[in-house]
Amino acid sequence: MASPDPALLSLNTATVRERWNLAQMIEGCARHGIRGISPWRDKLDELGADEAARRIRAAGLTVTGLCRGGMFPAPDATGRKAAIEDNLRAIEDAATIGARCLVLVVGGLPKGSRDLAGAREQVEEGIAAILPRARAAGVPLAIEPLHPMYAADRACVNTLSHALDLCDALDPKRSGILGVAVDVYHVWWDPELQAQIRRAGRKRILAYHICDWLVPTTDLLLDRGMMGDGVIDLKRIRSWVEGAGYRGFHEVEIFSARNWWRRDPDEVLAVIKERHAACC
Amino acid sequence: MASPDPALLSLNTATVRERWNLAQMIEGCARHGIRGISPWRDKLDELGADEAARRIRAAGLTVTGLCRGGMFPAPDATGRKAAIEDNLRAIEDAATIGARCLVLVVGGLPKGSRDLAGAREQVEEGIAAILPRARAAGVPLAIEPLHPMYAADRACVNTLSHALDLCDALDPKRSGILGVAVDVYHVWWDPELQAQIRRAGRKRILAYHICDWLVPTTDLLLDRGMMGDGVIDLKRIRSWVEGAGYRGFHEVEIFSARNWWRRDPDEVLAVIKERHAACC
Repeated sequence: MASPDPALLSLNTATVRERWNLAQMIEGCARHGIRGISPWRDKLDELGADEAARRIRAAGLTVTGLCRGGMFPAPDATGRKAAIEDNLRAIEDAATIGARCLVLVVGGLPKGSRDLAGAREQVEEGIAAILPRARAAGVPLAIEPLHPMYAADRACVNTLSHALDLCDALDPKRSGILGVAVDVYHVWWDPELQAQIRRAGRKRILAYHICDWLVPTTDLLLDRGMMGDGVIDLKRIRSWVEGAGYRGFHEVEIFSARNWWRRDPDEVLAVIKERHAACC
Repeated sequence: MASPDPALLSLNTATVRERWNLAQMIEGCARHGIRGISPWRDKLDELGADEAARRIRAAGLTVTGLCRGGMFPAPDATGRKAAIEDNLRAIEDAATIGARCLVLVVGGLPKGSRDLAGAREQVEEGIAAILPRARAAGVPLAIEPLHPMYAADRACVNTLSHALDLCDALDPKRSGILGVAVDVYHVWWDPELQAQIRRAGRKRILAYHICDWLVPTTDLLLDRGMMGDGVIDLKRIRSWVEGAGYRGFHEVEIFSARNWWRRDPDEVLAVIKERHAACC
């Protein structure tokens, strides 16, 4: 399989979050010829969305997503309302910086609850509540199914199939305002992956995130691998998303407390470019 | 929901493996009035299958399973053949001790491979290869779907749906010789769980394993929780397996390096009995 177009590389800022602020990330992408960026909201808040938008535009970068909205389930109505409001602010910020989507990490079980089906209903209600604002702002919402090991505490949507069921329920006309973020780390294991990527199609695949699954994995959250260092067949999955019509960016998101977060971000970006060309 | 019948409690020996040998486990079950036991093969080998069978019979225990066969994928034909032979020995041991099933942890990716679909084919071929011997010995094989976080290194069958597809392919007549082990730890997150338990039905559910999912979970392998200490809705899942017609044992399997493995096994067994009555 041919190497991917280097112009499609995007940096999710989580990858270098420990050593750079957003201004440095923007400069870093420009310096390394990386054309896309996907900021997290904590970094965006430091700089301010308007100033961030100005600098990102000046650097000529595409904003492949804003991370993140979601976290809908809560023990009571007050908590659920606060989550909705936070998501509306995220939609505004995403519009300000021209993000191609707002990534939704939907949230897990409310504290003290074992009602997974109930949490999933709260997620559906939450997305339904913010969808009109997303539509008005022109900010597509990308439901990101998270690996099942995060079902309790981060996201109770854990398969592409489930995420697409939500899309079908809430946006049956496939308007483009609701879709999914396909992150290989979360979905690589799924025997239905190829079929569900096909089902999603071009209209529903709003983002494509890459990294790798290490063997062994020593931490549930902060031990993701650089592309090529693990067992995910990245070329095969790319062929599936391209086969479904996806032509967007390949966003590199690596949470790695023991390795990549400790390195000089300029080195990390150089390695990302090499590995994107060789392994993805 | 009513408390479960305490006569259905079974001890998977992994739960107390750090401080007891199999002879002590058998005595412990008898002493605490636990009526079922499920040994692991390392412990069985220490005592010898014949001697273990004699002692288990003398104690009046039901052997709810033997852990474990499986681990089929290998980088070459020699490795795959060795795996088959090891499984045939496991079937013999399971017959010797009168186990209700041999639990299959099917294995992950062969070393150096990223070919998940290929590993899954090797699993299907491996089970097909040992099925005649299982049938001849009267030892049902229970495919245990493992949590997706073990897809690379322990088991590339990660959903009940996938396990049941294998059962349908290899034993379309539902003879009873091939089925699944439903372990709540591995499947609790699955939005299809209820439907797939129903699909499995009485004929295909060969074992039911319980423990709990802790929040946070600090280790991918060795941080399982005692029933009631986590977020799994154990009563609800029991209602589903009973609704499907399952009337077998509830086998407690807890890998817990930081907590339960450090305690006096007599205390662990007492807590298991309490929690089984209160939380399951």
